[in-house]
Amino acid sequence: MELSLFTDYSLRVLIRAAACKEGERTSAREIAQTFAISYNHVVKVTHHLAKLGYLDTARGRNGGVALSRPASQIGIGEIVRKTENFALVECFKTSGNACCISPACKLKRIFAEARDAFLNCLDRYSLDEITSSQATLTLLLSASRN
Amino acid sequence: MELSLFTDYSLRVLIRAAACKEGERTSAREIAQTFAISYNHVVKVTHHLAKLGYLDTARGRNGGVALSRPASQIGIGEIVRKTENFALVECFKTSGNACCISPACKLKRIFAEARDAFLNCLDRYSLDEITSSQATLTLLLSASRN
Repeated sequence: MELSLFTDYSLRVLIRAAACKEGERTSAREIAQTFAISYNHVVKVTHHLAKLGYLDTARGRNGGVALSRPASQIGIGEIVRKTENFALVECFKTSGNACCISPACKLKRIFAEARDAFLNCLDRYSLDEITSSQATLTLLLSASRN
Repeated sequence: MELSLFTDYSLRVLIRAAACKEGERTSAREIAQTFAISYNHVVKVTHHLAKLGYLDTARGRNGGVALSRPASQIGIGEIVRKTENFALVECFKTSGNACCISPACKLKRIFAEARDAFLNCLDRYSLDEITSSQATLTLLLSASRN
């Protein structure tokens, strides 16, 4: 059981954006460099997060991306719900009965309940709670760019 | 977020074995045929489940596999714990600090908590609760083989 790279990178982009001081912006290039991850992937993720309303983007010399609302108002559960595909087992993917025992099998319902427990747990945390040690985080981020 | 094929098939093998009547056995070939899945994968899964003590195997004319303890004593949570890899994000996989912000990031702890909530939910169900509509299940399984 693994989260997609898309969700992983979405969280990193938002963590980096949350570390910006008032009026500061970051960029896809800086984020990719900081985490040593694919620039093209970060660009895609950044576009998607802007579309979802998490990031505010600006062009030009002082352009870049920044959080569009405070980190304390962005829940980890809601990010993961919006970026992740939760087709845990085959029967989540098919609308029909691809597995012969589907009509009598309660596994899908049980896994849906477990998925909800997973997400409800993430709902208890917001983006600012991941990045609460702001001073250490800023130090690590700037060290990584040098 | 998707469970591995190994976990998916393990559950199917155990569901099929749980549907056997007293003294009956099933086989990897029959299971593969019933679910229209790879025979080679089912053989691997069956060996692993026997090794874990869930299946009792017998050779010969009346050979095959059967549950080694009642389905009511086999928890869904324990099966998934033993068959699944729970490296949810990159930082679960590396012992060191591959991600530059690891020392200040609480995401790993939060995801570990969510994983535990997922598994604790599955712990509430045993194998016999998936297959409780025994008559319908038997009908579906036999229909699938014909």
